[in-house]
Amino acid sequence: MAQHDSHLSRVFHALGDPTRRALLMRLGQGPLPVSVLAAPTGFALPTVLRHLEVLEQAGLIRTEKRGRSRMCRAVPVALHGAADWLAAVRSEWEARTDRLEAFLETLEDEHDPEPRD
Amino acid sequence: MAQHDSHLSRVFHALGDPTRRALLMRLGQGPLPVSVLAAPTGFALPTVLRHLEVLEQAGLIRTEKRGRSRMCRAVPVALHGAADWLAAVRSEWEARTDRLEAFLETLEDEHDPEPRD
Repeated sequence: MAQHDSHLSRVFHALGDPTRRALLMRLGQGPLPVSVLAAPTGFALPTVLRHLEVLEQAGLIRTEKRGRSRMCRAVPVALHGAADWLAAVRSEWEARTDRLEAFLETLEDEHDPEPRD
Repeated sequence: MAQHDSHLSRVFHALGDPTRRALLMRLGQGPLPVSVLAAPTGFALPTVLRHLEVLEQAGLIRTEKRGRSRMCRAVPVALHGAADWLAAVRSEWEARTDRLEAFLETLEDEHDPEPRD
């Protein structure tokens, strides 16, 4: 649980930055060399490398040395935990809203049990 | 876009901490006073208040002074942006996997166009 929790923390922390989210989006095109990924960000390579390190530590990407360049690829399964957590909280919150509505309907019925003639 | 981006950053940043995620989960029970929310965390009240401030700045909760206590409630709609973003990236990544598979099938067909008699 604690291990799962810290993984989830790393994933959400990694997603909490617009540059890192843009890098992830671009990896939808397929594996790309770091230099190609870095170009449109407008940041210096060391900055982009730090962002990629955060993404890799969260398990969201994998990087691999290929000759003189480093290739990055997305790891789709790494998003599942975060998506599942959000879905669980939403259903928890919405179930609560449903229970509240049902309760309010009960109150209405108690105050107005029969339509008048 | 930039505004949406910074909202999304605040939401993901807020979710990147296990204590804040636990606080959000508990708000599925309905609005709770800060003191009740703080009790099971094992943290001092000022620490919990700082976490709640991060959640409130991300729009994930609303707090309201009621007499001597402060009530907290979940804001379900605030999770939609994060869930939508995750779904968009997943579908982007998965579409890429589908295209890759289709491409590999094409290659296979080219190399083995007809079954032998």
